[in-house]
Amino acid sequence: MGDEIEFLEELKMLKEQLKFKEKVEVPNNIENVVIAGMGGSGIAGKIFSEFYSKKPVYLVDDYKLPDFVSKSTLVVAISYSGNTEETVSVAKQAIKRGAYTVTITSGGELAGYGDQQIRIPRNDLQPRSATGFMLMPLLRGFGIVSDKEISESYSLLEQLDRNNGKCKEIANDIAKGMYIPIIYGSSPFKSIAYRWKTQFNENAKVMAYSNSFPELNHNDTMSLAKTYRKDCLYFLVFKSTNKRIAKRIDITATITKSNFKIIAPKGSSDIARMFYLLHYGDYLTYYLGVIRGINPTDVSLIEELKRRLGRFKH
Amino acid sequence: MGDEIEFLEELKMLKEQLKFKEKVEVPNNIENVVIAGMGGSGIAGKIFSEFYSKKPVYLVDDYKLPDFVSKSTLVVAISYSGNTEETVSVAKQAIKRGAYTVTITSGGELAGYGDQQIRIPRNDLQPRSATGFMLMPLLRGFGIVSDKEISESYSLLEQLDRNNGKCKEIANDIAKGMYIPIIYGSSPFKSIAYRWKTQFNENAKVMAYSNSFPELNHNDTMSLAKTYRKDCLYFLVFKSTNKRIAKRIDITATITKSNFKIIAPKGSSDIARMFYLLHYGDYLTYYLGVIRGINPTDVSLIEELKRRLGRFKH
Repeated sequence: MGDEIEFLEELKMLKEQLKFKEKVEVPNNIENVVIAGMGGSGIAGKIFSEFYSKKPVYLVDDYKLPDFVSKSTLVVAISYSGNTEETVSVAKQAIKRGAYTVTITSGGELAGYGDQQIRIPRNDLQPRSATGFMLMPLLRGFGIVSDKEISESYSLLEQLDRNNGKCKEIANDIAKGMYIPIIYGSSPFKSIAYRWKTQFNENAKVMAYSNSFPELNHNDTMSLAKTYRKDCLYFLVFKSTNKRIAKRIDITATITKSNFKIIAPKGSSDIARMFYLLHYGDYLTYYLGVIRGINPTDVSLIEELKRRLGRFKH
Repeated sequence: MGDEIEFLEELKMLKEQLKFKEKVEVPNNIENVVIAGMGGSGIAGKIFSEFYSKKPVYLVDDYKLPDFVSKSTLVVAISYSGNTEETVSVAKQAIKRGAYTVTITSGGELAGYGDQQIRIPRNDLQPRSATGFMLMPLLRGFGIVSDKEISESYSLLEQLDRNNGKCKEIANDIAKGMYIPIIYGSSPFKSIAYRWKTQFNENAKVMAYSNSFPELNHNDTMSLAKTYRKDCLYFLVFKSTNKRIAKRIDITATITKSNFKIIAPKGSSDIARMFYLLHYGDYLTYYLGVIRGINPTDVSLIEELKRRLGRFKH
């Protein structure tokens, strides 16, 4: 029980992270941007890439730096612990290649690297509970967030911290049917659909998958109507303000006879709606974990994996 | 039954598509590459992007061209039918922006656009059965495939056309348990894992999902050990020649007590292994459709969706 209360406190810290003032320095001569990060530390780059496309943003969730990286590339390597082997490997290659390299971490090996080193306060959060710390330096550095958007986001997160009964209700529904959640997003919240998937995995320890409109209309759609095991699945679908996408969602539900649980984000800007949806998923997945009697902070298997991988390092 | 035999004939045409000689023209002054395509026509760009990283490759599976696109961008818009609304929209924006635009299509609206127009022979394939036609111009244009790799790939595909009993066997297993397939890939075959997912959706009309190592070690892993409904899932995992990834696969199976069906690609190069895995999935998903009594070429719902979307165009 102790872990659950602690984790709830972690969730409530997201809004304060919006005030994190560090910014990624973006040199003038930069032609493209690479962001490296895995899992809970990778989500910041994924979210950012949906809000910024003035330069090509290339995401790396693996060991290898892409070949195009040069002195004209900004590489941002993000790892909460600072010891994620994939991300450390990419950062080292970036430095060797002469790229302008920024590291965002709370410590570890990564903290020793980088032309710019952004240090996240070390307070032993789960990496996935430090999304604000990892995302804000990107949003601020590229100048794509206003004070107004931040303050609206802050109040929405605060509201959710006080009132998240709806999240608990949905979690109850999912637990009752032992459903596998399938989350459908759309631009600019495709990464948030993926975030929910990963939060279901880590907070509730249930398998979950995400996909996005309009791409899913070219694959999932045919199976939605005729698959077996549909009674195992629970569809969570983000409402879209884009009329064409909204229409796609409606039509897809109708012609495939699917029960879509529509999640309508609050907020008057995409940034605010993004934070709202992000946090909504935090609570929903947290409650599902609690209902299942799961410790949401238990990542023992990932630790075990790292331990065993260590044995074979050479 | 007619449709099934015809579709089998379609599958056997992949190897001949390797001989398609058209090449994307890559102007010298190009700084980055955008490839637009949806579903069965989008897979070509996804595969290509795993084999080429000398310039940033940015994939679009939506309506909007990214902001960075300029005269120094090569935009390749791919749609088998030429009438995919998302892709047509991106191509039009690219032309307006002054990008060097290449279209790859068998006809339709898209055929009228592009500085270079690559025309696929029009023989009414399913878009997803024309992957070779859409992929080869990219591989050849960027000079990342050798004659030797092509001829090895050709013989492997020919072998699979003659001998694919193993695919049928796995399809039988999956059908018997009415499993939801989960496909785990790794570089440079992450896109092939996604391709299998979409082929399960379209050929067999079953829901399916994909993910990749090492990213999945940061999310799926925790749920693999403790999820409910694990007995609904069937894990198909591509064997990796990368030792670190191979080790990750082994350890993940062991510590999460998961039954991974390992698929080992034949071939001496990554290109040959890629084509082998691609085609292996074609047969596996085709057989699952046949066993389920499903017409693999039935895309009536996608047609219905397009029809209904048409009504709301303005």
